[in-house]
Amino acid sequence: MNDSAPIGVFDSGVGGLTVVREIMRQIPNEKIIYFGDTARVPYGSKSKETVTRYSRQIIRFLEKQNVKAIVVACNTASAYALDELEKVSDIPMLGVVKPGARTASDVTRNGRIGVIGTEATIGSRIYSRYIKEINPGAEVLGKACPLFVPLVEEGLLNDPVTDEIAIRYLSSLIDSGIDTLILGCTHYPLIRATVGKVMGEGVTLVNPAYETARELRELLERGHLLHQVRPELGTNQYQFFVSDAADKFIRFANSIIKYGILSAKTIHIEEY
Amino acid sequence: MNDSAPIGVFDSGVGGLTVVREIMRQIPNEKIIYFGDTARVPYGSKSKETVTRYSRQIIRFLEKQNVKAIVVACNTASAYALDELEKVSDIPMLGVVKPGARTASDVTRNGRIGVIGTEATIGSRIYSRYIKEINPGAEVLGKACPLFVPLVEEGLLNDPVTDEIAIRYLSSLIDSGIDTLILGCTHYPLIRATVGKVMGEGVTLVNPAYETARELRELLERGHLLHQVRPELGTNQYQFFVSDAADKFIRFANSIIKYGILSAKTIHIEEY
Repeated sequence: MNDSAPIGVFDSGVGGLTVVREIMRQIPNEKIIYFGDTARVPYGSKSKETVTRYSRQIIRFLEKQNVKAIVVACNTASAYALDELEKVSDIPMLGVVKPGARTASDVTRNGRIGVIGTEATIGSRIYSRYIKEINPGAEVLGKACPLFVPLVEEGLLNDPVTDEIAIRYLSSLIDSGIDTLILGCTHYPLIRATVGKVMGEGVTLVNPAYETARELRELLERGHLLHQVRPELGTNQYQFFVSDAADKFIRFANSIIKYGILSAKTIHIEEY
Repeated sequence: MNDSAPIGVFDSGVGGLTVVREIMRQIPNEKIIYFGDTARVPYGSKSKETVTRYSRQIIRFLEKQNVKAIVVACNTASAYALDELEKVSDIPMLGVVKPGARTASDVTRNGRIGVIGTEATIGSRIYSRYIKEINPGAEVLGKACPLFVPLVEEGLLNDPVTDEIAIRYLSSLIDSGIDTLILGCTHYPLIRATVGKVMGEGVTLVNPAYETARELRELLERGHLLHQVRPELGTNQYQFFVSDAADKFIRFANSIIKYGILSAKTIHIEEY
């Protein structure tokens, strides 16, 4: 494996760009190939079998791009498919759930940790499983927030409607006395301010993207795969692929990442 | 073609069941095979090319079920794909857009007609095109309401949040002086009460499902395909297929249709 090969990152759509943003910040020498499954988004309300089938197709696409590592930048795919994907591919792989679970376990003082995410991620209870491996005494409370993704995609990032929905979703978590809350969906960092306001200052918000980028760096270092120099100007350091509607993706992507995304290529992912 | 063959009905997910409900009411002797593309829902934010590719796969599936007619019970698929689908299949086909446009043209008194729907349906301006074929002097105002589908799917049918979002989406239509509003997405009849309250009594709401079932009856009559007697007890008069998450579909379906839906079969639609 060549250290100048790109890192493959995928998500059901645009949310994984919050992870890309962290990778760009923390390991700026790396090339990235991003795939967003915009034709089949969202994953969070789909079954394990379907999410796994879709994720396998994406892994095959990324393998063809000769990536040196793969980041599953989607909580639902990490929860449902990562174990299976690691069996079918030799490429080092990292999800967002384990890093998020580790950070929350480090951060909590009272051992009461909340997780918000899609129906799929919360229903899988995967954060609870990983947190209890680290801290068996921890108590983990999950809450699915299915409207957060459409509200973010509609751009209502600072809006009374999002506030109202957040109050409804989060009130049981406030009452439960958690001191740490995992943003267990890659869209949620975009409404971090709203969630923080509703939860109050006593609750630390954990964005798994930060820790995922840190662990990716370690993974690359261990495998002697860290790229030592910045790619030359004019090389395509960051490449974006989607399964549908590249124009819409580019608009959204540029609102998340300060790097100007000029193009995204549409591919037929079901052919992989 | 056999008059005892079933009618094929498809939608991106569960919304098309509001059309099935009308067909059950108006032509109760017919067998129905319904397909909901729950693995790839929603269609309303996807491109024309993708929606057409998905719809073609569904047509091939329905053809294999030997249906005698097909209802495209999805406004987005009707807007983007119907012309193309009619070219590739000999089976008589009906969308929901033309019937909705006809009803609105009949109902309006001042010639100012509003349409609400997905981004795709509104962006295609297809309602406007059909209405102007019937009434060239009509003025048609479209408004995309992307949050309505997730709000319905989350069950917020009578809820202050849905009211607030409806007020925002609909205020420009109220100001424009329309007297008729087409519910141009099969999910919207489920929040008819909210939309009606916001628009006020002076605006007639048009649900294309009603007129679609009426035109389907005419289509079958013209082709001597109307089934004359009720299927015998014990035959599967209504069969439901989905591309994912049959259990969730059944729960939602039973909340829309009074007929008890006991089962739905999951198929791999991309293999068709």
